[in-house]
Amino acid sequence: MTQQTIDRIRKFTEDREWNQYHSPNNLAKSIVIEAAELLECFQWNDDEYDLQHVKEELADVLVYSRNLLDRLGLDEDEIVNMKMDQNERKYPVNKAKGNSTKYTDL
Amino acid sequence: MTQQTIDRIRKFTEDREWNQYHSPNNLAKSIVIEAAELLECFQWNDDEYDLQHVKEELADVLVYSRNLLDRLGLDEDEIVNMKMDQNERKYPVNKAKGNSTKYTDL
Amino acid sequence: MTQQTIDRIRKFTEDREWNQYHSPNNLAKSIVIEAAELLECFQWNDDEYDLQHVKEELADVLVYSRNLLDRLGLDEDEIVNMKMDQNERKYPVNKAKGNSTKYTDL
Amino acid sequence: MTQQTIDRIRKFTEDREWNQYHSPNNLAKSIVIEAAELLECFQWNDDEYDLQHVKEELADVLVYSRNLLDRLGLDEDEIVNMKMDQNERKYPVNKAKGNSTKYTDL
Repeated sequence: MTQQTIDRIRKFTEDREWNQYHSPNNLAKSIVIEAAELLECFQWNDDEYDLQHVKEELADVLVYSRNLLDRLGLDEDEIVNMKMDQNERKYPVNKAKGNSTKYTDL
Repeated sequence: MTQQTIDRIRKFTEDREWNQYHSPNNLAKSIVIEAAELLECFQWNDDEYDLQHVKEELADVLVYSRNLLDRLGLDEDEIVNMKMDQNERKYPVNKAKGNSTKYTDL
Repeated sequence: MTQQTIDRIRKFTEDREWNQYHSPNNLAKSIVIEAAELLECFQWNDDEYDLQHVKEELADVLVYSRNLLDRLGLDEDEIVNMKMDQNERKYPVNKAKGNSTKYTDL
Repeated sequence: MTQQTIDRIRKFTEDREWNQYHSPNNLAKSIVIEAAELLECFQWNDDEYDLQHVKEELADVLVYSRNLLDRLGLDEDEIVNMKMDQNERKYPVNKAKGNSTKYTDL
């Protein structure tokens, strides 16, 4: 996400004085609510979906995720790379290649 | 997210030949599953939470969201700005300031 | 659910003095958390799943749903029949038969 | 749930020929989607909520859970009691009384 987009999201929240509602708990609820609306695009049919609707719901997930990063003062790249370190250890290529087994069963 | 982090996520998937599992439907399921794990950090207590755990689960949401952007060939800034256009229209500052009422009830 | 099973769930909560945690908000979070664990059984494969795991996660959804009914003093049959009244109106047989279109698009 | 309510739910599905959409995977998606709509009643405020809305969304969770029990030929009391056996072992009264710590940390 560019700095300009991040700034727009922040200004949107500040202009409406919504930071008071953005507790980590409320934002975690919001992310799962939007993620479920994204899933609703695929509720009865895996392969046919309304792309515009998918874009809007995925955008909502990304906006609330950005709100939570901001609320907690986290750096997106830092936490994602920390998690990718873990993922690479949990799923070594030679074991995980071409299968979707959970790491606890690898 | 920097290009370097995006490339790392892509390489992780490619090295494991996991693109075959990354249908939009499966990724939408994965985002909601990880979002619920994030919410679990706040299940019984809104204010005390394990920050390291929060970081890991939020990172998982962000990684699967990146996977879905890639799978659908979407540009993150484009879809977020499209949605922010909608949000700014749905929640005009003079009506939304300082209250959390849903736009359908504004 | 038989009265005996309902009583067992209530006694489990009371013996552990967990009613203090069973706010409607916390129970709603818990239901979505367990529902996502149920979905995890189908994360990468729609058709092959661990039936024992499905049973356990569905049971968790049902137990927290019962906790919420209890917390709010609701009668399960009453609210389900109220909703079925709505569903039958929203999805008349002649329009809904054999298609999964959402009522707002029927 | 009384047999009469169960029969009504089954007839609703059969009359609309919706059994074809009720794969376990689709029903698991549906349960989490409705559970998130239930959570939305508490998105920004834990304590003030629209009780009628809560009833409707909780009813949706219960109806889809019933659909999944039916689809898999499961007995609700059997799976709930099986899970309560596990819960009673994982959360012994003397350790769990008055605290909400997850069993893995007890």
